Amino acid sequence: MLDFEEVQKHNTKDDCWVVIHGKAYDVSKFIDEHPGGSAIILKYAGKDATKVFDPVHPPDTLEKYLGKEFHLGEVKMPEKTPKKEYDDDPDEPPSQEELQRRLNIANMPDLAQIYNLNDFEFVARYTMNKIAWAYYLSGCDDEITLRENHLAFHRVFFKPKVLVDVTNVDLRTKMLGTEVELPFYITATALGKLGHPEGERVLARSAGKQGVIQMIPTLASCLFDEIVDESLPDQTQWFQLYVNKDRKVCREIVEHAERRGMKGLFITVDAPQLGRREKDMRSKNFEDLSHVQGDDEEADRSQGAARAILSFIDTALQWSDLEWFRSITKMPLVLKGVQRIDDALKADEMGIDGIVLSNHGGRQLEFSPPPLELLIELMPILKKRGLKMEVYLDGGVRRATDVLKALCLGAKGVGIGRPFLYAMSTYGDEGVYKAIQVLRDEMIMCMRLMGATKISDLDESMIDVRRREVVEDKLFGKVYEELESPAFKLKL
Amino acid sequence: MLDFEEVQKHNTKDDCWVVIHGKAYDVSKFIDEHPGGSAIILKYAGKDATKVFDPVHPPDTLEKYLGKEFHLGEVKMPEKTPKKEYDDDPDEPPSQEELQRRLNIANMPDLAQIYNLNDFEFVARYTMNKIAWAYYLSGCDDEITLRENHLAFHRVFFKPKVLVDVTNVDLRTKMLGTEVELPFYITATALGKLGHPEGERVLARSAGKQGVIQMIPTLASCLFDEIVDESLPDQTQWFQLYVNKDRKVCREIVEHAERRGMKGLFITVDAPQLGRREKDMRSKNFEDLSHVQGDDEEADRSQGAARAILSFIDTALQWSDLEWFRSITKMPLVLKGVQRIDDALKADEMGIDGIVLSNHGGRQLEFSPPPLELLIELMPILKKRGLKMEVYLDGGVRRATDVLKALCLGAKGVGIGRPFLYAMSTYGDEGVYKAIQVLRDEMIMCMRLMGATKISDLDESMIDVRRREVVEDKLFGKVYEELESPAFKLKL
Amino acid sequence: MLDFEEVQKHNTKDDCWVVIHGKAYDVSKFIDEHPGGSAIILKYAGKDATKVFDPVHPPDTLEKYLGKEFHLGEVKMPEKTPKKEYDDDPDEPPSQEELQRRLNIANMPDLAQIYNLNDFEFVARYTMNKIAWAYYLSGCDDEITLRENHLAFHRVFFKPKVLVDVTNVDLRTKMLGTEVELPFYITATALGKLGHPEGERVLARSAGKQGVIQMIPTLASCLFDEIVDESLPDQTQWFQLYVNKDRKVCREIVEHAERRGMKGLFITVDAPQLGRREKDMRSKNFEDLSHVQGDDEEADRSQGAARAILSFIDTALQWSDLEWFRSITKMPLVLKGVQRIDDALKADEMGIDGIVLSNHGGRQLEFSPPPLELLIELMPILKKRGLKMEVYLDGGVRRATDVLKALCLGAKGVGIGRPFLYAMSTYGDEGVYKAIQVLRDEMIMCMRLMGATKISDLDESMIDVRRREVVEDKLFGKVYEELESPAFKLKL
Amino acid sequence: MLDFEEVQKHNTKDDCWVVIHGKAYDVSKFIDEHPGGSAIILKYAGKDATKVFDPVHPPDTLEKYLGKEFHLGEVKMPEKTPKKEYDDDPDEPPSQEELQRRLNIANMPDLAQIYNLNDFEFVARYTMNKIAWAYYLSGCDDEITLRENHLAFHRVFFKPKVLVDVTNVDLRTKMLGTEVELPFYITATALGKLGHPEGERVLARSAGKQGVIQMIPTLASCLFDEIVDESLPDQTQWFQLYVNKDRKVCREIVEHAERRGMKGLFITVDAPQLGRREKDMRSKNFEDLSHVQGDDEEADRSQGAARAILSFIDTALQWSDLEWFRSITKMPLVLKGVQRIDDALKADEMGIDGIVLSNHGGRQLEFSPPPLELLIELMPILKKRGLKMEVYLDGGVRRATDVLKALCLGAKGVGIGRPFLYAMSTYGDEGVYKAIQVLRDEMIMCMRLMGATKISDLDESMIDVRRREVVEDKLFGKVYEELESPAFKLKL
Repeated sequence: MLDFEEVQKHNTKDDCWVVIHGKAYDVSKFIDEHPGGSAIILKYAGKDATKVFDPVHPPDTLEKYLGKEFHLGEVKMPEKTPKKEYDDDPDEPPSQEELQRRLNIANMPDLAQIYNLNDFEFVARYTMNKIAWAYYLSGCDDEITLRENHLAFHRVFFKPKVLVDVTNVDLRTKMLGTEVELPFYITATALGKLGHPEGERVLARSAGKQGVIQMIPTLASCLFDEIVDESLPDQTQWFQLYVNKDRKVCREIVEHAERRGMKGLFITVDAPQLGRREKDMRSKNFEDLSHVQGDDEEADRSQGAARAILSFIDTALQWSDLEWFRSITKMPLVLKGVQRIDDALKADEMGIDGIVLSNHGGRQLEFSPPPLELLIELMPILKKRGLKMEVYLDGGVRRATDVLKALCLGAKGVGIGRPFLYAMSTYGDEGVYKAIQVLRDEMIMCMRLMGATKISDLDESMIDVRRREVVEDKLFGKVYEELESPAFKLKL
Repeated sequence: MLDFEEVQKHNTKDDCWVVIHGKAYDVSKFIDEHPGGSAIILKYAGKDATKVFDPVHPPDTLEKYLGKEFHLGEVKMPEKTPKKEYDDDPDEPPSQEELQRRLNIANMPDLAQIYNLNDFEFVARYTMNKIAWAYYLSGCDDEITLRENHLAFHRVFFKPKVLVDVTNVDLRTKMLGTEVELPFYITATALGKLGHPEGERVLARSAGKQGVIQMIPTLASCLFDEIVDESLPDQTQWFQLYVNKDRKVCREIVEHAERRGMKGLFITVDAPQLGRREKDMRSKNFEDLSHVQGDDEEADRSQGAARAILSFIDTALQWSDLEWFRSITKMPLVLKGVQRIDDALKADEMGIDGIVLSNHGGRQLEFSPPPLELLIELMPILKKRGLKMEVYLDGGVRRATDVLKALCLGAKGVGIGRPFLYAMSTYGDEGVYKAIQVLRDEMIMCMRLMGATKISDLDESMIDVRRREVVEDKLFGKVYEELESPAFKLKL
Repeated sequence: MLDFEEVQKHNTKDDCWVVIHGKAYDVSKFIDEHPGGSAIILKYAGKDATKVFDPVHPPDTLEKYLGKEFHLGEVKMPEKTPKKEYDDDPDEPPSQEELQRRLNIANMPDLAQIYNLNDFEFVARYTMNKIAWAYYLSGCDDEITLRENHLAFHRVFFKPKVLVDVTNVDLRTKMLGTEVELPFYITATALGKLGHPEGERVLARSAGKQGVIQMIPTLASCLFDEIVDESLPDQTQWFQLYVNKDRKVCREIVEHAERRGMKGLFITVDAPQLGRREKDMRSKNFEDLSHVQGDDEEADRSQGAARAILSFIDTALQWSDLEWFRSITKMPLVLKGVQRIDDALKADEMGIDGIVLSNHGGRQLEFSPPPLELLIELMPILKKRGLKMEVYLDGGVRRATDVLKALCLGAKGVGIGRPFLYAMSTYGDEGVYKAIQVLRDEMIMCMRLMGATKISDLDESMIDVRRREVVEDKLFGKVYEELESPAFKLKL
Repeated sequence: MLDFEEVQKHNTKDDCWVVIHGKAYDVSKFIDEHPGGSAIILKYAGKDATKVFDPVHPPDTLEKYLGKEFHLGEVKMPEKTPKKEYDDDPDEPPSQEELQRRLNIANMPDLAQIYNLNDFEFVARYTMNKIAWAYYLSGCDDEITLRENHLAFHRVFFKPKVLVDVTNVDLRTKMLGTEVELPFYITATALGKLGHPEGERVLARSAGKQGVIQMIPTLASCLFDEIVDESLPDQTQWFQLYVNKDRKVCREIVEHAERRGMKGLFITVDAPQLGRREKDMRSKNFEDLSHVQGDDEEADRSQGAARAILSFIDTALQWSDLEWFRSITKMPLVLKGVQRIDDALKADEMGIDGIVLSNHGGRQLEFSPPPLELLIELMPILKKRGLKMEVYLDGGVRRATDVLKALCLGAKGVGIGRPFLYAMSTYGDEGVYKAIQVLRDEMIMCMRLMGATKISDLDESMIDVRRREVVEDKLFGKVYEELESPAFKLKL
């Protein structure tokens, strides 16, 4: 049992110990190769780093990445004074901004005052810590794609039927062979603990309770097994995969996922390199944290970051690799991030089980087409060829009308990401439950008003896609946080 | 004769009396089934509830809904000190917002300063009580449909003729066989007493004086007969019907309407369920009042609200039911809320006398097509088939040019709703009279400047519908109150 | 010689004298028939009314409209204290707004700081008196047409030629047979004295100096002869005619105009009734002044205003009347205010010499097509039929590029109105001269950069009209004063 | 050796000496012919004018333009007190605005906080001196073309390919026969010293270090040879030529450029006259400095400015002159400023080596087509005819996506101007280096995400140009400084 006073002495770059969850580690050798940069480690040299370690690392990180020889064992930590709500460093008093945020948290609206998904986003914007908020909301470059994903839905109008018996509305449908209660799913998003201490487990629980599918991300902050363990016996989950260069590792992950009951393997194909997300990059202490997901460009240049977490992703992944995946798993195979008609057709020809039209929520390539626009163009072609695979879509969804439009156009289901993160980050389990509930209520109402009583009633005859002008929605327009430049401050 | 002191003792949920118009009622048994929720009743337990009862209940509500055994008889009310302008509860001093509103009322512009319908809306926005204002103006979801209804008129331009003798302009036309002075009508809107103590009777009087048709709503706050009684001998009125599940009740209503001289039966077909109107939902004390119209979703879930006023609406109403209506009345039959070409054609084929292209003023299904857009597409098809039924339209009309565009495109007449509510809520009878006058003056001027002297001069050769870009009008843009989220307050 | 003290006694409605230019008039009998209303006369009963009379009445008004028996002769006015800059009524101290305006005038930018026509408008907005400003700038209804007139130019792009010898640029062209220095003219606008004490004479002088045609309005505040007298010997002027119901009067006016050398008769065909110009109507003291031009609707209703100046306009003017004009004058005949292809073709067929595509500067019918859009559509048709008449256009022109676009599209010339009024109202003669100079400089530069050296080089091959989206210009966007409602003040 | 006290005596218009770089000159005879006006010279009569002379004159100006007889020789200048950071004239204390600017400079963001080219522009806006900033950013007229150049890129979307091996990305390409590292070049812009004391030399150095081509402008503030001397041995530079009326001078310049190793001759064809740049014209002390580039309109009118620097430009330059250029140089010949399909085709037919689709950065003819739009239309025609010449484009480029779109559409390379000026003016060499680096990083990322690994992979199949609506980018929208009128100040 180490003494904490001993630990505190090892507080230099060359002799650097840190405490995580009551255990000390010697990270002196590792410090230069830390994908998140050395600065953040040095800041906690000789200190307890648990608070900053947790949100951005899965619990098994040190086991996996740090040699056993650097595990120094348990530390006898000093008696803590009863935990204060905010555990500020006495040398670093909280900023005015942070104080305002705490005040905001104290004055959060009651969950009963939340009427739609934008409301969650509002509350999140003013109560989440800045780094987490910036990480979740950030899009690439000028965020044109981010906004277009959403606005594309506003170019589509309904052709509602009247005088239909709409007493009973049934929202159930099938996705990849699974019966689900609602025609949307919680899509994979990274670093859930940035928003909530229990991270992706929160999403798993609420999804389970309402019969909604959750797609578990490779880059979860919880362990994959922790998330699966959180699910109900008959709860359907899918697995999102970043393909590892090391195919052996990759195979292990896939086989493990299948063993744990995953009902779909979603291979991300739109992220051989991370997009430039400037809000995220600008957020305070960016250097300290944001490299957790790595940046393989940087990685290529600095040997020290060669082991960056994301650098495992195979930039050479090709169509021909897909056969191999077929050979190692029986899970339905879905390509997540298809952005072009040709590629969709090729996937169909190759017998892939499904595709997700997605541009990664506007976080990767600026001016990638909004998924809804792509869907409008793709489906008639696919139908003419005799649709075999299932088509999904994610990006920009905020209302039940958005979901219904995609379904009318031929999508099997719709992925929703950020809104659930915001619901989780603000109101936890209850927030996510309510978010699903809000969508469900909106959906029943809209189905009735469209003259549709079951998902199969929704088809292209219910929809008008001829309009080209966008009508902006005021709530989204207000919650959207515009990009800023550091020079802004010069004006003050 | 009961003593008021006695009444005051019955102020608990289990023993709950209230006074309405000087009569006491025991509502203990009813409290859980009150469509507007129990909270509002409890607030007035043992008190005089007339002030809050009146605006949202037709006068015969208690007669109809409360068993005779709970009618306790007249109450000797204490001498009132002379009525103060605002009868504030001493325990609940008026908010800053409310004080500002009262100041606004004291400084209302003279009616002579009102030049157009938007002006009424402005004055209403700053002088009406918040709940009433929110109820009237609210649209569904993000209010995109609400705004599009209006903006659609801005895509249409005229092709004015010059060198035509326009000395005499005649605005008379025929609707459903009735000669009218002006080619628009006051359409049905619920809860008129929220804006004016005399509610729909105000509209009836002004309509009568200027030869304009009023459509009487099922959900009026005045009794149907009160409104009819207010009309002039030869005044034309129509009746808007929410179809009751109980066809016997329904038949009685229809037959009564016909007996009282209604010249048209407008069956609402766009509201099997109420739309989500978030402004209304957010307005203070929403829980207390807004359920008056019910929310059958909620209703389905909570047995207590099973008798919610709106729950009588038949969600199973179908095309085949229309024959039955034919069999019980000789009034012309019109479908209000048609939103799709197919349905319009079907109505025509079935020999329905008319349809109203309408999306319920943007209050029901978001992304329902703007009625004017639908009209542009529908009329050429109808004309080719030999138009039999009459086509009306409502939603977004604010100027005579809007009305004239619809007429050029083939509409028989145009319904106007909210603007008359705002005129009524601000300036009462004089306001509504002036609103009609303003439209009349604008219309005469526009007809002259278009080179048209009678309604039949207006046809599609006078109109250009090729433009797709919207030009926003500044007054509407300013009077439109944007949606807000509760989290807004967090920023302060 | 009357004593002013005597005049002062006649200060009631029944016994009402006023002094104009040192002469007393008994207006008791006339007061109810004053087209501008009785209020303004009563305000000056027994007083010197010259100051308010002048800007809105041609000098011969009393001679023409008031019987000789009411001319009371000269008045011995009291010695005036040396004239103060602002002659405020001691009982009515100037408003805060007016004081600001005076400060603005004291701080007016130097004319050298004026770089374009928008600059004049800016200065005018902040230095002109409110009534004059409102009268000049006001458009009809929501001013959509006013703004569209201007914005329509922004949908047209050039196809500039390079490597052309552009050393010498010649801007001369011919309009209705007259050689002119510049391809635009100062179009007719009413009430010039509202902006400058010398009114239309200022425009006449500057036009003459630079070889630009001025179109003299029927409703000038100067006498027609005063304006003509101001012109140079060989200066070309045109005459704009509101056609009088009394054809004898009309004939006298036309014959007089021809005798005084007018080179074109522009018959206004877009104003059988004045449009609703709400800014003008709302401007302070509207009742007092704005009816000077009358409002024949009102006129029809109130016998008292039967002699309203504008009521002389013939609302029955028709195509068949044009022959008569041909018979009484040899001046080229032009229809001002054509707004529709059919009418343009009919004018051409009838052998009319020219038309002005115009919607009266957006002051008459809202949603009349922007003249430039009409030109784009009309010219190919006219050319195919073998263009005989000349086509002009006015409305929304602010830059030389606007003029050049119209010329490329086939217009013979372009009318510019408000900008010259603003230049005149702010900097007088020098302002108007500079305004013409600015346009000339811009035009030479643009011609060079387009690779054109003479007006006949400009044709449709230089222009691209396929674009539909408007690009807003920031200066116009800022100088444009948005419509406001009286209820705005309620918010304060 | 002259005494400075002697110089100080010659401080009148008729007897006017100035000191430049320690040498005295008698400019009395020259003062009226100074292209920049006499005011600025008089301000420095009898004084040291080096500070204001330097940024706007190449060092050899006096040698070239002032007769030897007026060179008075070296001056013994008084001992200077140690240079202060800002050398204010004691009689003219710095304005509030200027003090703010200095504060801004003191608080400039660290270069590490700069993430994109807009960031440089922001910093420049708040730290550059007003005259320099206005000169660089100004566009012509209402700056619609300036903004459209940029916004045009937002109408184009990508069609990204997935599942392509993008491990290695190669950005190298060939322009006019030279292999370059990156597919863009630093285009020619005038008066570099306004932004940085070393002017165009800064650009030369950074371009050289990263294998980017620099186009050297005729109107550089550095001497042509100074710039060339700054380049690395194998660095490629091009030369931009304003064609001199005096063909002998012109020939000397061209031959000198070729001798110094220029690899392309870019003849500017879009500037026979300078455009009206109102921001520049309005910027303080405009009269003093901005005429440096002359204004040949003015020049034509005032004999005094006959020798204005720009008056040398041949307004008669024609297609037939191009043969002559072929005859005097072997450098590839490129036309800079082509704005029309016809002219592009003509250039191709004449065997010109290349064209730059450009409207001079929106500084010349307002409503010249955005280069990207022109490219979209031109390339299919050129390809059908068998493309011979190379097509370049400049104007509005701010992101790597902009560059890649142009390349997909068939451009050989893209010119970038202002962003490098802003980078240079704020952070000097490091700024320009970083600006190139930012573009390079963005470009590698985008290529990967598009599924392209080399420039030749980019073709029209990767691009969607059907969209017509513009999506605005927030950073550009914020950094863009709107036009203002002097009357703005009246409101205060």
